[in-house]
Amino acid sequence: MGNLLDGIEEVLLMGPGPSCVSEEVYKALSRKTLGHLDPYFIKIMDGIKAQLQTLLQTENSLTMPISGTGSAGMESVFVNLVELGDAVLILKNGVFGLRMAEVATRLGAAVDVLEFAWGTPVLVESVKKQLAVKEYKLVAMVHAETSTGVCNPVQEIGALLSGLDTLYLVDAVTSFGGMEVAMDKWVIDALYSGSQKCLSCPPGLAPVSFSLRAVNVIMNRKSKVPNWYLDMSLIASYWEGKSRAYHHTAPVNMLYGLYQALYLILQEGPEAVYHRHREMHKMLVTGLETLGLEMLVDESCRLPMLNAVKIPEGVDEAAVRRRLLADYKIEIGAGLGPLAGQIWRLGLMGHTARPENVERLLNALREIL
Amino acid sequence: MGNLLDGIEEVLLMGPGPSCVSEEVYKALSRKTLGHLDPYFIKIMDGIKAQLQTLLQTENSLTMPISGTGSAGMESVFVNLVELGDAVLILKNGVFGLRMAEVATRLGAAVDVLEFAWGTPVLVESVKKQLAVKEYKLVAMVHAETSTGVCNPVQEIGALLSGLDTLYLVDAVTSFGGMEVAMDKWVIDALYSGSQKCLSCPPGLAPVSFSLRAVNVIMNRKSKVPNWYLDMSLIASYWEGKSRAYHHTAPVNMLYGLYQALYLILQEGPEAVYHRHREMHKMLVTGLETLGLEMLVDESCRLPMLNAVKIPEGVDEAAVRRRLLADYKIEIGAGLGPLAGQIWRLGLMGHTARPENVERLLNALREIL
Repeated sequence: MGNLLDGIEEVLLMGPGPSCVSEEVYKALSRKTLGHLDPYFIKIMDGIKAQLQTLLQTENSLTMPISGTGSAGMESVFVNLVELGDAVLILKNGVFGLRMAEVATRLGAAVDVLEFAWGTPVLVESVKKQLAVKEYKLVAMVHAETSTGVCNPVQEIGALLSGLDTLYLVDAVTSFGGMEVAMDKWVIDALYSGSQKCLSCPPGLAPVSFSLRAVNVIMNRKSKVPNWYLDMSLIASYWEGKSRAYHHTAPVNMLYGLYQALYLILQEGPEAVYHRHREMHKMLVTGLETLGLEMLVDESCRLPMLNAVKIPEGVDEAAVRRRLLADYKIEIGAGLGPLAGQIWRLGLMGHTARPENVERLLNALREIL
Repeated sequence: MGNLLDGIEEVLLMGPGPSCVSEEVYKALSRKTLGHLDPYFIKIMDGIKAQLQTLLQTENSLTMPISGTGSAGMESVFVNLVELGDAVLILKNGVFGLRMAEVATRLGAAVDVLEFAWGTPVLVESVKKQLAVKEYKLVAMVHAETSTGVCNPVQEIGALLSGLDTLYLVDAVTSFGGMEVAMDKWVIDALYSGSQKCLSCPPGLAPVSFSLRAVNVIMNRKSKVPNWYLDMSLIASYWEGKSRAYHHTAPVNMLYGLYQALYLILQEGPEAVYHRHREMHKMLVTGLETLGLEMLVDESCRLPMLNAVKIPEGVDEAAVRRRLLADYKIEIGAGLGPLAGQIWRLGLMGHTARPENVERLLNALREIL
């Protein structure tokens, strides 16, 4: 039997993630595996924690990557903060809001969902009205809705909740590393992300962070977290303090990759990285419009790293994606849910967000369409 | 700030895992990242599934790696098979039996624990008696108890349960890849393992397999799995069938590593690999006895890949481990729970199980003790 890995060809990843990975991160992944309790490895863990705190603009001590993908990050924040019967409000305008509602419901929360049209942002006024009607233990929203390309008003919702007892939970899977996420300033209590979007590390890790208020909620739960693997009070005893208690065996090499990915962003400078994302976004949109293509989302709330483009009348969208992949070695994303067949999703995440990549995609689309 | 990764020095990993990783697996980890829905990546997923089926000697279709470490594998089998109030029997003779009881209890199962002394195996007669007294939905046992070095009678307990409606769940974290695990022949309904033990891939993935009977139990649950991330019915729709539905973004590069690790075992031949583990175990035990050291576990039920050695009177066990790591670049494991300070745990897992490594450890111990 031949080795399938020998047939892997490099693909320009311009979909909704994973994004392109730099040579430095690939090299980091293949560094020699250390034991998960090796003092030098613990130094690297501390380094990752410090890097995450810097990039999230937070002083939260409980800041670390969960040993799973972004969805494990989502699962971890809900399962730690929510108990049976807790009132939870999900602000939903895409697949990932829907997923949050599903996760919280399965955990026995009393979930209300405030719906907004896909492709439009969460409206602060509607949330304000809902909060006047009912008290919630937790309000959750996606910052960058990967399924639509919409940027939700994270700071504004944070301001609404400020002063209430309500916990504020934010999905920063696609935003983190590609645009500002100011956890403390925006008064976010719990946040999760993923390694494979704007951090440009392969998928497999989910950075999370919890405010002191969220930690207090966890510490004062009535019931044990019904998920041993994701119990933050146990995970914290491995990631924090002097004596590191074994919980589960950390994904050592993936953590090397994440360390390197964060290192590169901090070296380039977060502001410069965010600027690069915005510039590449402008370049892409201009190019798409030149090709006669139209964006789904209004300019006022477009994400730089996830660009939803309407599929022109009469075009076989799946055939275009197949041809891009087969003939041009470029991956783009399809629409999800009600937007399936309506849009393509073009990612400009992390290492992918470079002029040569934007040009390559635009040239390929020009030839195909 | 310097890059901490530049300071990583190679360590001979002879503890309870992670084990040493081969150059081929390191290379696989750093292959170019493909999208998680790329047709070529799906081929690799199918390859991993086929390799796991071969090595587990099973025809179970629901066989795949969970996107998390071995403990996520444990969480996944329990959360899918157990519902509120279900009667579960855990056969416990070490840390990982204890963890199973904790996981199942948090999920609301009615857990009975049958205890056996740490360092001794589960006794078939005691289990038989218990099964005569009470009916269980599920009986769970660890095959290779990593905390003590004991091999439990997996086949015999399987034979006991055969014909009953009871599901049989086995932890094969440390056994899989280092000794025979014959899932179908032993009538095991659910099994999980980890990538970082005898498979010699870095930590981060948990192979699992479910029998048809277990799948039926999952499909006929009264309640939804209270863990969206680990819901096997959703994960299956990504790993099986013609149209692969996106569930979560698979840890692409870790899966490359696992593919390569399984590939190497199948190339060498599972029987040859198991034989190598037994031979290295004999070589190690002979060497340890020459040094005047004594094994914790009776020869009749010793694991080849995890060797628990009693710490000689008057020896500062932590100092020995520290010196091994600092001066000899060898990692060994400490005792856990009641065996802390009583034993060292010497791993001979996968790529680690080679004569030059056994010699290096024996020479180092000779110099230190």
